[in-house]
Amino acid sequence: VIDLQRDSQHPLADQIAKGLLDMIQRGELLEGGRLPSVRQMSGRLGVSVFTVVAAYDKLVARNSIVAKHGSGYFVAHRQRLAELADIEGGMIDPSEALGFAMQSQDPQKLAVRAGAGFLPEEWLADVVPPSLVTKVIKATNPLVAPGPAQGSNGLRRQLAERLRAAGISAVPGQIITTFGASHAFDLLMRTLLRPGDSVVVEDPGYPILHSQLKSHDLRLLPVARLDDGPDLDALEEAVRSHRPKVVFTQTLLHNPTSSSTSAAKCHRLLTLAERYDFDIVEDDVAGDLAPEGATRIAQLDDLRRVYYVSSFSKLLSPTLRVGFMAVPRPAVSRLVSQKVQSVLGSASFSEAIVEAVLETGRFVRHLQQVRARLVRYRQRAHALLAECGVEVEHAVADGTFIWGRLPGLRDADVMVREALEEGVLLAKGSMFSPAGRFTEYMRFNAAHAVDPRLAAVLDHVRAAYCSSAEVRPLRVQAHAPAAAGE
Amino acid sequence: VIDLQRDSQHPLADQIAKGLLDMIQRGELLEGGRLPSVRQMSGRLGVSVFTVVAAYDKLVARNSIVAKHGSGYFVAHRQRLAELADIEGGMIDPSEALGFAMQSQDPQKLAVRAGAGFLPEEWLADVVPPSLVTKVIKATNPLVAPGPAQGSNGLRRQLAERLRAAGISAVPGQIITTFGASHAFDLLMRTLLRPGDSVVVEDPGYPILHSQLKSHDLRLLPVARLDDGPDLDALEEAVRSHRPKVVFTQTLLHNPTSSSTSAAKCHRLLTLAERYDFDIVEDDVAGDLAPEGATRIAQLDDLRRVYYVSSFSKLLSPTLRVGFMAVPRPAVSRLVSQKVQSVLGSASFSEAIVEAVLETGRFVRHLQQVRARLVRYRQRAHALLAECGVEVEHAVADGTFIWGRLPGLRDADVMVREALEEGVLLAKGSMFSPAGRFTEYMRFNAAHAVDPRLAAVLDHVRAAYCSSAEVRPLRVQAHAPAAAGE
Repeated sequence: VIDLQRDSQHPLADQIAKGLLDMIQRGELLEGGRLPSVRQMSGRLGVSVFTVVAAYDKLVARNSIVAKHGSGYFVAHRQRLAELADIEGGMIDPSEALGFAMQSQDPQKLAVRAGAGFLPEEWLADVVPPSLVTKVIKATNPLVAPGPAQGSNGLRRQLAERLRAAGISAVPGQIITTFGASHAFDLLMRTLLRPGDSVVVEDPGYPILHSQLKSHDLRLLPVARLDDGPDLDALEEAVRSHRPKVVFTQTLLHNPTSSSTSAAKCHRLLTLAERYDFDIVEDDVAGDLAPEGATRIAQLDDLRRVYYVSSFSKLLSPTLRVGFMAVPRPAVSRLVSQKVQSVLGSASFSEAIVEAVLETGRFVRHLQQVRARLVRYRQRAHALLAECGVEVEHAVADGTFIWGRLPGLRDADVMVREALEEGVLLAKGSMFSPAGRFTEYMRFNAAHAVDPRLAAVLDHVRAAYCSSAEVRPLRVQAHAPAAAGE
Repeated sequence: VIDLQRDSQHPLADQIAKGLLDMIQRGELLEGGRLPSVRQMSGRLGVSVFTVVAAYDKLVARNSIVAKHGSGYFVAHRQRLAELADIEGGMIDPSEALGFAMQSQDPQKLAVRAGAGFLPEEWLADVVPPSLVTKVIKATNPLVAPGPAQGSNGLRRQLAERLRAAGISAVPGQIITTFGASHAFDLLMRTLLRPGDSVVVEDPGYPILHSQLKSHDLRLLPVARLDDGPDLDALEEAVRSHRPKVVFTQTLLHNPTSSSTSAAKCHRLLTLAERYDFDIVEDDVAGDLAPEGATRIAQLDDLRRVYYVSSFSKLLSPTLRVGFMAVPRPAVSRLVSQKVQSVLGSASFSEAIVEAVLETGRFVRHLQQVRARLVRYRQRAHALLAECGVEVEHAVADGTFIWGRLPGLRDADVMVREALEEGVLLAKGSMFSPAGRFTEYMRFNAAHAVDPRLAAVLDHVRAAYCSSAEVRPLRVQAHAPAAAGE
């Protein structure tokens, strides 16, 4: 149906693209309809498959058609088309912190979230039954009644009890709910720090935190994270030279290394804080997965200079966006003011759901299941990674993350983008390093890193991106159809 | 039981307070227990009622006992006590923007939210039935599946349709969901402005916006709000002299005046924006209450330099915290990045609920009811206010707010605190004015300003705080028990 002018000055691929576009616009090719395969089209038009691929690529680039991995090319829906232009087209670099965070929250595009921070959806599916939500609505109607800006009283009471059980003495008045841990970090930066201030961060550490700190014009002092916590000699050195106001640290099951700070180091870090007069922001988002009785710095300090941050986004629901902080009492009203200035109030409905899940004991049972499951998945993930040549220095028993090294890895940015095209989200090591270290490393999520499609991609990565790698053929078809659909 | 030393150097009130405290600490007065009434205690101890009131006041001030309006004094719960110390004790001034916002979201403390921005809970009680929430959970399980950081695709499609119906051509890719309108303002400030930049705001206008702008170190240029929109001659003057980057304006049913900008002024403001190259942030949180066919600036501009902000917090649920903005396409990815840096992701569950309410047509029907109800309540509120000597220059038919003047009003801060003790939340006019004007004004919420307890408080205000007022006796007992209970 496309009339090709073989002696024209316009390349054949352009003519094919133009012809298809006309057919779409005339309605001869329907929205959502499937285009002939590259091979079929090549046969019909009597041109090479390369010419057809080039033509299709042009239409994909302008969002007129959509490529679905494993199932071919489809005419874009008009609305989808407009949407794509901004959501996927204007995307942030997926190898960097913000773009990575966006990708990892958009699972419809991903088959294997090997590097993501979230647990698989099915692991969380049963913790909030619909009947519980209905009960919550009927009991207090939290959909219509605003609650205290500091956070609902009931949830803060539950949180204070949980903290006390973990040895942290906090009263509800010291607790401020937030829209996740990152929101707490943002409020703490606004309250405790001024542009130009220095802060200590762990290297490697949580990339969104680093990105937030930079956007607040703060000066990052990276301190190496060791197996038993931050390198405190280096930290003392940095503190002595630069007098940072705040040290950010994740004590238990640290992201990305899954290491935990020893009790002795917790004590020494707090002693340094007192000596050099800095505050500590203690990230405890993974603490619920740590063995009972693990030491947090907040326990030792009684919340005098420790700002304790945690969240239910990882282990209960990533979409309720309920996090919280327990803070020194003199800081409460300033932090609540900043919360009002950032989001006005609390999401009382989400808070009431979390409160009910805590109150009924469901959360404790759920955590036990997740912990047991993670132990099994970690073993399988370790085996898969070892077979793909990923070296894991310190195999930790708990937690979500595995921090591995692929010797000789280079061009990790390109690797991330290429893997993403196969539907596999990889987390390159340097993304976690404010000093740009760990270029040969990757973070894996044990719950996701058991998928053969990850193995296929890693084999390809070794072949294509590792200077010292032994080149092996792909074991699995890289274009396997995406499980999560499209 | 209290041994009073009448010849002691310690005042009797101190001795009584000390005696009661000892009894509480020894457990002779139980947590939550009721104290003898002032009159009873006065009789038992043989001291004046003033002495007993003074003693009780001391204990209330240190949170050892709690006063419940209409029902007496109770021994504080230990937990409640610790909580109070930070939540109520360390409270921000309720006559200023942040403290006011906190008070207005804590309705358990309030009997009459006469000045608040929210509608009464019962007005919103039916818009989200529990069955709809259950259906949403079962259909897509939005509790466990993360969604795009920009906002869920389904909700953004619904919003784009709603905007198109209002004459604003936005595609889903231009829409970013936020945790309410204030969150959108915060993200816009972080993205469009740098510390030291100038911005135009309306005087009077939304106090939290002013507070946010100041906390971002921006320079506010107040421009008078007239009956048909901002004073554009003054605005042009300010723009010419100070070259602001952004003008913030609420076109329809403006807070606090309920005035709407005329179509001609919308056009002229946009022309000025083009001539002097500034952006416009258009607040449309009340637009759903405006008559059909009202003109918004975003309609005229096709979202090229207009950033359109709205929210479901006022008319659907204050606690779901779902707002959104529709913005020029080149700004989308920067704004989504800032969203990730402030809260990481979207509250997909809340968004799915709003999407369902929009999709089923419930919201449109609900709006019709609210509009009709507001017309009736406005009439009643106007009558009550007129009787209390409040002058309303321009009685508008629609919207939530009534902007009234109490001639001769002074010491509005003290008035607000005193009214709050009676359980009545008043909104003083100067809170809305970045220039400190409108000291004789107050904002009333028509849905709440129909309560006789407001009339009682206003009568007292006229007597105590208005220099020119005719002093009248209180019509209703000011200590009437709070409807919302405590």
